[in-house]
Amino acid sequence: MSQNGLFLVFEGGDGSGKSSQRDILVERLKARGLDVVPTREPGGTPFAEEIRDLLLRGSMDKMHPKTGLGLFAAARAEHLETLVYPHLAAGRIVISDRFVDSTFAYQGSGEGCSMETIAALHRELCDDAQADLTILLDGPVRTLLERALGRIADTGSLEDRFESADIAFHERKAQCYRDRAAAAPERYLVVDALQSIEAIADQIEAAVLRLIENRRIAAA
Amino acid sequence: MSQNGLFLVFEGGDGSGKSSQRDILVERLKARGLDVVPTREPGGTPFAEEIRDLLLRGSMDKMHPKTGLGLFAAARAEHLETLVYPHLAAGRIVISDRFVDSTFAYQGSGEGCSMETIAALHRELCDDAQADLTILLDGPVRTLLERALGRIADTGSLEDRFESADIAFHERKAQCYRDRAAAAPERYLVVDALQSIEAIADQIEAAVLRLIENRRIAAA
Repeated sequence: MSQNGLFLVFEGGDGSGKSSQRDILVERLKARGLDVVPTREPGGTPFAEEIRDLLLRGSMDKMHPKTGLGLFAAARAEHLETLVYPHLAAGRIVISDRFVDSTFAYQGSGEGCSMETIAALHRELCDDAQADLTILLDGPVRTLLERALGRIADTGSLEDRFESADIAFHERKAQCYRDRAAAAPERYLVVDALQSIEAIADQIEAAVLRLIENRRIAAA
Repeated sequence: MSQNGLFLVFEGGDGSGKSSQRDILVERLKARGLDVVPTREPGGTPFAEEIRDLLLRGSMDKMHPKTGLGLFAAARAEHLETLVYPHLAAGRIVISDRFVDSTFAYQGSGEGCSMETIAALHRELCDDAQADLTILLDGPVRTLLERALGRIADTGSLEDRFESADIAFHERKAQCYRDRAAAAPERYLVVDALQSIEAIADQIEAAVLRLIENRRIAAA
């Protein structure tokens, strides 16, 4: 996205290990002396976090889906303009837990909001910004959901805990991520989320280090 | 805008008497037994009022202008979908203090945000909705500002209280309103805000009663 710096994004569904892997990459790059800025969406800046609070308080049965799309886009514009762009301009590596693909996957494919509206809002408010590399943690939806549940309780099958409509929702999200990655393979690293944490972290680190070398980003 | 009901909007700058005139019209129509729903923007519904609070708390130096545009559009979508459309579908008369023209005038012409972005957000999130009639209270900006100040303090000239940049801001807003009214005269009633309160209220009531008769809206 930028001439300077590097904008990396982690995406994936529940149980994919996305947030943990973001934290590991941040630590590994910092250990190499690189200037890394971890962040997340929605949120990432004080005012964007206030919009996040509103989104979480106003759960989907409390607000109209279009209202949600507007709030996500507003929070993203704030995050880009006041955090992402300035840090990239200063040559830093910004690593975000989620970005616009989450909106396409969750609100679009998952909840049935218009993909065209999501794309238009991203164009109008967010300059159609893309990550330099989106790291997608992907795997069989049912297995990953079972893993996510395993963190909460060790009993009960997936069917005990989720309606089949919920599983279909997660399947649609996962397919959306895969489709977006397939459409622009040069901007995505799709990682098998069923590998060990260490193997996944190594694979991600290797890809990011290659990108850093190509961009000639030096330690701070 | 609607087959049923009637969507009326009051617009105008500071000191134009817009909010008082909205209240008078609401009372006069209610006295005729008509089913009237007074509302306002940003806000008008519990969740849209939460977005309003965020907009007011996050004054323009706290948020990026694009963030503000996203929040205004999100609040408007919520207001339309959960209050305006349902009441219109039930045949009621919805009367709002401000609507999308305020965003064109304040954030667009006033603060220099892109008019194209405002129009695109209105298309994407708000179905390009238009009021059946927008009542614009218009007058010489300096005179109206002096009147607004008169309510606060009786001393000091306009130049003591406003920077010339502020007066220019109000002039740009007023011109935006006039341009929008001139571009679609069938949807606007431009009223001279320097007339007496009673004369203004009579003129507005007469125009609205004609519209009600044309639409065959009956008392509840």
